[in-house]
Amino acid sequence: MELTNLHSLSASEAARVIRDGLISSEQLVEACLTQISKIDGQVQAWTFLDPDHALAQARAADEYRLSGQPTGALHGVPVGIKDIFDTADMPTENGSALYAGRTPSRDSTVVSMLRAAGAVIMGKTVTTEFAYFSPGKTRNPHNPEHTPGGSSSGSAAAVGAEMVPLALGSQTNGSTIRPAAFCGVIGFKPTHGLISRHGVLALSRTLDHVGLFARTIDDIALLAEQLAGYDGQDPDTRPRARIPFLKVATEEPPLDPMFAFIKTPMWERADADTKEGFAEIVEQLGSQVEEVELFPSATEAWQWHQTIMAVEMAANLEREWNAGRDRLSEQLRAQIERGREVRAVDYQRALRQSAPIHESFVELFEQRYDAILTPAAPGPAPKGFDSTGDPSFCTLWTLCGMPCISLPLLQSTTGLPIGVQLVGPRHGDARLLRTARWLAAKVATG
Amino acid sequence: MELTNLHSLSASEAARVIRDGLISSEQLVEACLTQISKIDGQVQAWTFLDPDHALAQARAADEYRLSGQPTGALHGVPVGIKDIFDTADMPTENGSALYAGRTPSRDSTVVSMLRAAGAVIMGKTVTTEFAYFSPGKTRNPHNPEHTPGGSSSGSAAAVGAEMVPLALGSQTNGSTIRPAAFCGVIGFKPTHGLISRHGVLALSRTLDHVGLFARTIDDIALLAEQLAGYDGQDPDTRPRARIPFLKVATEEPPLDPMFAFIKTPMWERADADTKEGFAEIVEQLGSQVEEVELFPSATEAWQWHQTIMAVEMAANLEREWNAGRDRLSEQLRAQIERGREVRAVDYQRALRQSAPIHESFVELFEQRYDAILTPAAPGPAPKGFDSTGDPSFCTLWTLCGMPCISLPLLQSTTGLPIGVQLVGPRHGDARLLRTARWLAAKVATG
Repeated sequence: MELTNLHSLSASEAARVIRDGLISSEQLVEACLTQISKIDGQVQAWTFLDPDHALAQARAADEYRLSGQPTGALHGVPVGIKDIFDTADMPTENGSALYAGRTPSRDSTVVSMLRAAGAVIMGKTVTTEFAYFSPGKTRNPHNPEHTPGGSSSGSAAAVGAEMVPLALGSQTNGSTIRPAAFCGVIGFKPTHGLISRHGVLALSRTLDHVGLFARTIDDIALLAEQLAGYDGQDPDTRPRARIPFLKVATEEPPLDPMFAFIKTPMWERADADTKEGFAEIVEQLGSQVEEVELFPSATEAWQWHQTIMAVEMAANLEREWNAGRDRLSEQLRAQIERGREVRAVDYQRALRQSAPIHESFVELFEQRYDAILTPAAPGPAPKGFDSTGDPSFCTLWTLCGMPCISLPLLQSTTGLPIGVQLVGPRHGDARLLRTARWLAAKVATG
Repeated sequence: MELTNLHSLSASEAARVIRDGLISSEQLVEACLTQISKIDGQVQAWTFLDPDHALAQARAADEYRLSGQPTGALHGVPVGIKDIFDTADMPTENGSALYAGRTPSRDSTVVSMLRAAGAVIMGKTVTTEFAYFSPGKTRNPHNPEHTPGGSSSGSAAAVGAEMVPLALGSQTNGSTIRPAAFCGVIGFKPTHGLISRHGVLALSRTLDHVGLFARTIDDIALLAEQLAGYDGQDPDTRPRARIPFLKVATEEPPLDPMFAFIKTPMWERADADTKEGFAEIVEQLGSQVEEVELFPSATEAWQWHQTIMAVEMAANLEREWNAGRDRLSEQLRAQIERGREVRAVDYQRALRQSAPIHESFVELFEQRYDAILTPAAPGPAPKGFDSTGDPSFCTLWTLCGMPCISLPLLQSTTGLPIGVQLVGPRHGDARLLRTARWLAAKVATG
């Protein structure tokens, strides 16, 4: 086995060669750490990384495997964890000075599931302040003058820069899909409630989702299969039959999928490269795509999302507001102030009006379409670090709790990646991955 | 079979003699209608009653049974339905002039479950306006100068006056337990989410419960066993293993139950008869009861309940408020106005602070006690019809979603019934009925 490019392996490949004894987890983690030491001075994806602790986990995984005991699907594979997921062995600081040095006593549910699957918890990746807008230190791995997107900035950049094959993020508006698109990786936000958020910073019970980053669709399926499941500690998860993500995602669709190209009212924000790229994809898809107008009730989604997110953030960050508002960014203070002013009946109305929007999409899917085709962001990663870019192409799908995936299928004239977003009906997660694989192959072969 | 007192039969007895062919459903329903015609002029429990339609259902039940097909557990037994439960074959007016003459197109989930169990839907019972405080026409069957309590006024009175053996009500604060206590029947409010509220007037998703009325604990168990279950249309129900209510409720407790006598901060409102009655029960129970102080966080429950109920009512009745507020009672208008003023963060705080209260009760139950013993109301039914009485002895348990039962074990010096309330941990419904049966036997034998 050629050991020089181990850091480029996908998680699925890495898990396989470790399982087969071709490489050790220690070799893989060593390679990833070398890659990090080479380029993280520029990218700055990590907020906590202890190479010795990562290597110790890898060696323990190797010893365990050699003992002949059964191993998990991610045995020995390193994963980056956004610094809003509690880890019992590393700090979890939520991107805020208010939590500097905080080390939780317990792992979040998904981190324990990763450990149970044999993964090496590589370290903690940079998040924007409280997973909202105020940027961290991370740079885009494709061009250090550009934002990586946010709020899962470090996770997207770390996977994009081949520092780890997998990373966890979150999405309350566009915090997984947008940075994935900007960093040229695959981002997946599953159905609301599919993956537990217990032990993760809570901004908004209604809108918070765990997000996944990888460089291949197989890896997304592999990771999703480990993490999906009921957790009594997250009131929005439900006991459901196990989803065979890997099996479904790697199947050929029985029929060529049909796509609904939905521009949404945000289309006017899309740049020329994005518009041109989508025109080409639509042309390639031919009769497999139809442009669909967004139904009127859905056009109010942005407004409902804003109300719900502001209120729930103001409620969840009340302690931080009361005790330390002078140490919050101006952006976050303004958001909390907006939330604190909303009347409860207006908040309830936003919740009530949002619910039927998904119903209309269900009809769309049941009648004719396998996935919605839409941009992941208005364009490639913007230059500069004042903002992490515009989440508005994600808002509607997040509000509806629908599964979304961003695929790095386009490129700007300046060479930066542009994401293509596919959206499926709630609980159509595995089939959405299958459809995404079909689209990626179709676009690759022209 | 002596046919003169069929209306006095319990539902369990009635179901058995119908099953055994000793009487027909038509005879039973006829007897109940005769009782209604004798005394409903005074009690006024019904807002809709079509004797022909009830008899037609009874005859259909009899024909079905004679055809030899398998019958349900309530086959041929009449049930009264609070007029906030949708019925496809009768009006559902929610106690409001705004809904006069409304006939829904579909049955509520529980009404269809009753029909599936073979029950005769007798008619619709009087509710206060929108199941809130403004009284309907119903009088207390024990004394027509006194309120029956509310909001499930007609259901409690109809069961108390032996017009039907069973009736459905609801509880958002004290709307089942209080009228049950005032009318001298058994009222049962199960765990939040145990019985579907789909097709029932929604005041407050957080606080609304379906409530049950009967004259025996067996009947409560029989009815609960038919109605408990998952309903995809009520987001707070969950798929759970079937609960053998009848089996558990009729078992002897393996050990004599322990009771926690909790006075709550409302105790000062209790009248002399109630205080004396509880002193006697406590004496009778001896070492099986201990007085327990309410922990401090629970004393704020009344305040959280008020905020949540006002907000959710204002949100759910927004259309009625916008289009017809001049046709709402002054009490309801004031409640909606209160709700409309609440800020969303204060509402969210009320929700957030309520959640841990139940946890403290869980510890109480797991450590030592089978049930909490507490009054159902401050005293017997008050005289007059300006109000339906004080729900404050129910508020805490409703907020926590804990199962409660009111037993007519005491009497005032004026001869009116006084209710004894038992409260269990969430999902301890069937065991609570078993404990209630033990207590009733203990008090009966002195």
